Amino acid sequence: MGLKNSHNRFYNGKINYVNFSKINYIKKSVILLTIRVVANNYVKLEKKQEFIDLCKKLVEESIKEEGCMDYGLYHELDNPGILTMLEEWRDKSNLNEHLNSNHFKEIFPLLLEYLQKETEINMYTKKF
Amino acid sequence: MGLKNSHNRFYNGKINYVNFSKINYIKKSVILLTIRVVANNYVKLEKKQEFIDLCKKLVEESIKEEGCMDYGLYHELDNPGILTMLEEWRDKSNLNEHLNSNHFKEIFPLLLEYLQKETEINMYTKKF
Repeated sequence: MGLKNSHNRFYNGKINYVNFSKINYIKKSVILLTIRVVANNYVKLEKKQEFIDLCKKLVEESIKEEGCMDYGLYHELDNPGILTMLEEWRDKSNLNEHLNSNHFKEIFPLLLEYLQKETEINMYTKKF
Repeated sequence: MGLKNSHNRFYNGKINYVNFSKINYIKKSVILLTIRVVANNYVKLEKKQEFIDLCKKLVEESIKEEGCMDYGLYHELDNPGILTMLEEWRDKSNLNEHLNSNHFKEIFPLLLEYLQKETEINMYTKKF
């Protein structure tokens, strides 16, 4: 049985049926020395929807990239002006390829127009 | 075959043998509306090892908690003074239980002694 099938055993077509403890098992059993990226964008509130719309294509294209483990747009719970990319890359070279990809170089400069100030970017690797 | 076994099929005892594309498949196929936490700690450089040692128990205990999807200590790549907890909780109530847990209430106040300034905490939920 492939992993796709075993995955379907506990993901039954609706988010409610996900068995978190099993996903948890996978995440905790493997120490991935990946690069985690947190990019906080301080968005002009009146341009928030435009920012989100532009991010859709960036997320869709980035998540297909080689070495992309995770890539999503998030909102900060206590601050409606912060929209954040949380990313995970297999290694630094994959992240560098992302930053040089056509979709990133096309979309990122357009996003800057909707920001109040420069994006705060942090990159992390795991200690334990 | 349980998921534990299917997981072992591609995790062959060494980190080098992890098949990232399959882990990737799981992560991307399920949209988890969890709470992601990023807690940046600006540590006094001369107290860094003490801070790390204290975090070990906090990580070990927290990752066992109900609803804890991910919990780890990370270092920032460009700033040796930043040590960061990256966490993921199934929902807000699990996070609240964590903040009220004995191990958190015991260890967190001790960590504060090793900080240059207050921890910066952001909490996120996924848009897409």
